[in-house]
Amino acid sequence: MTRQVQSDDRAAARPLRKRREEIVDAAARVFAERGYHGASTQDIADLLGMRQASLYYYFESKEAALEEVCARGTAGFVETAEAILKNGSSAEERLRALLAAHIKPLGDRADYMLTFLNERKWLPRESRRRVGRLSRRLEAIFERVIREGMRNGEFRADLNPRLTTLALLGMMNSVAIWHHRENVTLDRIADTLADLVLRGAASDA
Amino acid sequence: MTRQVQSDDRAAARPLRKRREEIVDAAARVFAERGYHGASTQDIADLLGMRQASLYYYFESKEAALEEVCARGTAGFVETAEAILKNGSSAEERLRALLAAHIKPLGDRADYMLTFLNERKWLPRESRRRVGRLSRRLEAIFERVIREGMRNGEFRADLNPRLTTLALLGMMNSVAIWHHRENVTLDRIADTLADLVLRGAASDA
Repeated sequence: MTRQVQSDDRAAARPLRKRREEIVDAAARVFAERGYHGASTQDIADLLGMRQASLYYYFESKEAALEEVCARGTAGFVETAEAILKNGSSAEERLRALLAAHIKPLGDRADYMLTFLNERKWLPRESRRRVGRLSRRLEAIFERVIREGMRNGEFRADLNPRLTTLALLGMMNSVAIWHHRENVTLDRIADTLADLVLRGAASDA
Repeated sequence: MTRQVQSDDRAAARPLRKRREEIVDAAARVFAERGYHGASTQDIADLLGMRQASLYYYFESKEAALEEVCARGTAGFVETAEAILKNGSSAEERLRALLAAHIKPLGDRADYMLTFLNERKWLPRESRRRVGRLSRRLEAIFERVIREGMRNGEFRADLNPRLTTLALLGMMNSVAIWHHRENVTLDRIADTLADLVLRGAASDA
């Protein structure tokens, strides 16, 4: 009996979950295009052709929608980076993999990443802290790979791991802003930028 | 007689100009901290301890204040870059100078640059177009220096001038976001980042 009820609940929950997904997608798009403060729940409802009041069945507030969008915008970043850190390849291969992994989600989560990058300052304090901790963990992984490369001779010994990390993350985050205007794949961008920062622009001559 | 009137006008205009400067500074700070849509003219008035209604004597709207802040945030960028392009040094020196010139204004115009970077999408169409033209001129100068370096053998012949330009500008723009949290001068950041992109992270070995 209990099982039957649970099963019915799950069946009923499926369309709700799907609708919630659509709403989070719409919120991400509206936040990315207009900014958190420039976007209204009416804009989100309009995009979906639903009534504004119905939105509150899925999200209690615009802020709650922003939290969900930012959470998805950063989901998996640290886990992927930690997996790269653990595998046994060279520091150069690790750094290349970190750079590629950072822009890969732009393929299907560009609105989520843009919202995270531009609008996270509007998150409530506790969410902002959580997101800040994720950023610091990601920075620490970049710094660790750079230090390892410096130690084992793969990288120049006079690099500044901290500034290099911030510069690389800034460079890769900027891809979210400009890649859609350039006629080039994310893989190509990742390779080109990794070559630039590893080999440098100057010729070997 | 006419001259006397003009002279009186100029004398009277001085405190007005000074007050206008203070108001633009306050607007830049409020826009940088809260975003265009998160900021109200009341916030700007509060920062200056003046009445909101008095603001409209200096700016007809919040949008007009944003235009002024963005205009100052980009003022001189293209002119400085064109001057660097004209001087007779090597492509490497030119690129280093372009990178340094791009973050130097952060020393005294950080709020203006942040507002430009994050809020220019809210400018009225004509201002946005003007700003877009400035961006494209700046990108063209970077690309030209990179192509010259590729031609004369200073830079690797397999660089992608377009993607390199976008990556470098993205990297340098990110400095506006993080430099104030790091205990390091803008000169040091400029040198470190120029070394990174010119020499690369990989050791010569």
